[in-house]
Amino acid sequence: MSEKIYVGVDLGGTTIKVGVCDSEGKLVHTYEAPTKAEEGAEAGMERIAEYVRTAVAESAYEWEQVAGVGAGMAGFLDIPNGFIKFSNNLNWRNVPAKQILEEKLGVPVKINNDANVAALGEAWGGAGRGIDNCVCYTLGTGVGGGIIINGKIYEGFGGMAGELGHVSIVSDLEAVACTCGQKGCLETVSSATGIVRMAKDAVERGDRTALALVNPITAKDVFDAGKAGDEVALRIINRAAYYLGRAMAGMAVIVNPQRFIVGGGVSKAGDILFEPIRETFRKYTPEHAQTGVDIVPATLGNDAGVVGAAGLMLE
Amino acid sequence: MSEKIYVGVDLGGTTIKVGVCDSEGKLVHTYEAPTKAEEGAEAGMERIAEYVRTAVAESAYEWEQVAGVGAGMAGFLDIPNGFIKFSNNLNWRNVPAKQILEEKLGVPVKINNDANVAALGEAWGGAGRGIDNCVCYTLGTGVGGGIIINGKIYEGFGGMAGELGHVSIVSDLEAVACTCGQKGCLETVSSATGIVRMAKDAVERGDRTALALVNPITAKDVFDAGKAGDEVALRIINRAAYYLGRAMAGMAVIVNPQRFIVGGGVSKAGDILFEPIRETFRKYTPEHAQTGVDIVPATLGNDAGVVGAAGLMLE
Repeated sequence: MSEKIYVGVDLGGTTIKVGVCDSEGKLVHTYEAPTKAEEGAEAGMERIAEYVRTAVAESAYEWEQVAGVGAGMAGFLDIPNGFIKFSNNLNWRNVPAKQILEEKLGVPVKINNDANVAALGEAWGGAGRGIDNCVCYTLGTGVGGGIIINGKIYEGFGGMAGELGHVSIVSDLEAVACTCGQKGCLETVSSATGIVRMAKDAVERGDRTALALVNPITAKDVFDAGKAGDEVALRIINRAAYYLGRAMAGMAVIVNPQRFIVGGGVSKAGDILFEPIRETFRKYTPEHAQTGVDIVPATLGNDAGVVGAAGLMLE
Repeated sequence: MSEKIYVGVDLGGTTIKVGVCDSEGKLVHTYEAPTKAEEGAEAGMERIAEYVRTAVAESAYEWEQVAGVGAGMAGFLDIPNGFIKFSNNLNWRNVPAKQILEEKLGVPVKINNDANVAALGEAWGGAGRGIDNCVCYTLGTGVGGGIIINGKIYEGFGGMAGELGHVSIVSDLEAVACTCGQKGCLETVSSATGIVRMAKDAVERGDRTALALVNPITAKDVFDAGKAGDEVALRIINRAAYYLGRAMAGMAVIVNPQRFIVGGGVSKAGDILFEPIRETFRKYTPEHAQTGVDIVPATLGNDAGVVGAAGLMLE
């Protein structure tokens, strides 16, 4: 009996990326081509099917070895039924994606949202390999995340579990409005957007910082200034790290994962970010709930999406 | 084939309570007798077995209908192996409880900690009946709790999941040390102890409150004063409710339960406590994560322990 392979699709607004994984979560081949979302969902589904076939054909495996296809995407999804209710970045509505793709490909198909899928990718084939329970944060424009329990994405009652950027954590004194409509979400401080906002506020207030000379300010500018010893930049970085560390402290007694994985563009800052995260976590987590728990950087980068999508079939 | 029954044991420091439940989680008979923990674990195990047999004999059911026996207790447990590592209130160490009781009773036995078991009891046979995902808080001397996912207690990697009283939530400005060794835990504000502490602080500070005339102050005194319109008491109640509501807002995007159940002595205060909890929850939870989610009082009272222990066998 030949080895099974798992195909993952990262359905983005401009590009569809397909990854072929072996049964251990190792990415053995990738293929990427345009989404052309503006041509509509029907054409889009055909394109996904075509790209999946191409990726497998280009790999060292045969189509008969495909155990199934998973796809991750942004948008409002009916996950159990594999239905895209509305996708903002594709501008598609009411697409029975699972049904269409299963008909076209003749193999089982699952869909899930991109943040959950990226978390599953890191858990299965990345920094969480071999670990059953982990929580992943993706620090980018926003803060995404996913909770992997016993190797599976935890969805919760309304599919809203793992919206880790919207944990209400910031103290009222420094809380600002979040894009979600609420106040004090983690995302408002620990995302690139949050870091840039705090930097702009500091410059506007007239704080003495090298960032006053930078325009526009990016999160990377803030980290670079921090590494050069800029105290205002360091204060901002510590704030972003502090709230993430406190959010993790809560997670340690709620979900109690074995590992926290932090990915996304902001996480590339390295120790200057991870050290204060770990310090805060240690300070606010009961000792018995931090034993054996670590906080590590993600390892798959942009491949987390296709690896996790492929991993959907193993759930 | 005759109906199965499920027996639950609430192993307390002074009393062992046994409950017989039907397969729907309805408590049909209870029996209670002294623990006599000071006579040691061996005698204790024999006593549990005897009380279980008595409870079933007194009920309308036959021993042959017993599907299994669950037991909830405080202490450090090795849950999968049914082993009591150390129980503070019993002063027992290294007791292979599951093994001993299975030998004595001839039916499957499971053990779990009392907070988890009480949560399972409410979820199975109490306020969460018919609901798969719920989170329970018990507001007493401390804040306990449990997370029920798909009808099962969620334990986490180190068995530390659901230590909901130790979620780090209080802002640094008003955070105090917790018995767990950390700072800012929910338990420091939303427990009876936390409420009494805030009341004492207010009196010592010289705040104008009727509580200044009460000594010693209990949590009930604070609620009674609040109901009578005492503004200091209301402020304290709102603080206890605020942090619980914010903790729930976090849970809504982490665990995303369908229902929050609040029990324990403090919860008997009723609307004066529940209204500000609900208000805070609505304010800090993204709208799509609060849809269909409610916050309700527990209904089983002290029976939650035996019902949940019985429910362990259905997991």
